Amino acid sequence: MKMPLNIVKVGGAVVENDESLNTLLAAFCSIEGNKMLVTGGGKIATQMAKDLGIESVMIEGRRITDEPMLKIVTMVYAGYVNKNVVAELQAKGVNAIGLCGADMNIISCVKRPIGRIDYGYVGDVKSVNATALKTLVDAGAVPVLCPITHDGLGQLLNTNADTIASSIAAAMAVDYDVTLTYCFEKNGVLLDPDDPKSVIREMRKEDFERYRDEEIVSGGMIPKLENAFNAIDAGVNKVVITNAQNLGTDSGTECI
Amino acid sequence: MKMPLNIVKVGGAVVENDESLNTLLAAFCSIEGNKMLVTGGGKIATQMAKDLGIESVMIEGRRITDEPMLKIVTMVYAGYVNKNVVAELQAKGVNAIGLCGADMNIISCVKRPIGRIDYGYVGDVKSVNATALKTLVDAGAVPVLCPITHDGLGQLLNTNADTIASSIAAAMAVDYDVTLTYCFEKNGVLLDPDDPKSVIREMRKEDFERYRDEEIVSGGMIPKLENAFNAIDAGVNKVVITNAQNLGTDSGTECI
Repeated sequence: MKMPLNIVKVGGAVVENDESLNTLLAAFCSIEGNKMLVTGGGKIATQMAKDLGIESVMIEGRRITDEPMLKIVTMVYAGYVNKNVVAELQAKGVNAIGLCGADMNIISCVKRPIGRIDYGYVGDVKSVNATALKTLVDAGAVPVLCPITHDGLGQLLNTNADTIASSIAAAMAVDYDVTLTYCFEKNGVLLDPDDPKSVIREMRKEDFERYRDEEIVSGGMIPKLENAFNAIDAGVNKVVITNAQNLGTDSGTECI
Repeated sequence: MKMPLNIVKVGGAVVENDESLNTLLAAFCSIEGNKMLVTGGGKIATQMAKDLGIESVMIEGRRITDEPMLKIVTMVYAGYVNKNVVAELQAKGVNAIGLCGADMNIISCVKRPIGRIDYGYVGDVKSVNATALKTLVDAGAVPVLCPITHDGLGQLLNTNADTIASSIAAAMAVDYDVTLTYCFEKNGVLLDPDDPKSVIREMRKEDFERYRDEEIVSGGMIPKLENAFNAIDAGVNKVVITNAQNLGTDSGTECI
């Protein structure tokens, strides 16, 4: 019988707003047992870049990460956002530890090859050090991961936070009964994007493929669901996609 | 018989220069057994503040840390400097983990009371969580600490890196045979500040008090030596003050 492990990814507008972040963190604190948090912070990085006179270039929703932008995302994700979230969780009695992928070599990546687009210092996940994460979790710590990783050769890399959450969930599924929850500003995967009540309550991989082919799901929801089903395929128990306000309640879309 | 633990603090101009940092990290890597690194990064923070149009105010060598400055030092110390050092150490085969004082509540501080000067969000060390650090060290990890701490109530605080190194050394001395090395740009404590060869090789607390009263040591060396002898008083085996280039060699000033 494996021990349960809850992995929560929070991104989008939730992290950028003090009130919504605080609500999310309170709900996260009330989850019993082993848990981890993965945070984004893109809009704060965009604002910091602007303050420094640097333009953020996004292609298909992905940030182009040249050297000055890598410095900014490292400062914002691994420093400002990560350590403030850790301090908040500690204040709420959760033994948080803030980490990037370089710490204990938790997430090793390869720099994305230059194809049609040169994304710059962006990493694709190569391996997750589940042993190191297990050591921390077993010691009663609650890892808070930011989307900065490394290549093992001294280079930091900017990495998609949804993919980090999915990769970690998959790696931890060997030892734990893992539930992965993606929290964002919508109520789940919607049948009708204009109707917040049209949440698809349960989805299997074949449903996802059909919805994708019928263009019922589109845009940023496609990579999110691909990450979700990659985790399911790797042995993760379930993946929930839900509104950050509803974390810990029985709502949203359940990928099984 | 306690296991040895080497704690190295590196600050000043060393961290800001790629070449000197690389030399220091290579020497740090060659230290056998349990070890920790404490880093500064003040000049990088000053430059980042300048890039953001924010003036750095220093009084008696200490940074006044208002809210915008706290954001900058959190980004620079806990993000940019810390994670780049961790990635470099990982590339050199050292299992580094980058931490601030909020992580696993490793260093709890109190915000410095407003006295003659209002230092802002500056923390004085209240307690060190030696158990958490021991868990990490015993798991084969090498903690890399940055000078950001917290008050346990959700507030991050800027804290002197020399004091962090001294406080951690003192706390770890209960379980380990601790050597603390302060690396900086001078060869040690000098009898004549203009003669780099005039290193005082060995110093006891009574020697320090005499040198201080005779004004042979002055300025920033006084708090550094106070930190050193606080660590000695708490059971640290020895404290070495030496040039970063000489880490691992038998040189510098030994406080015993």
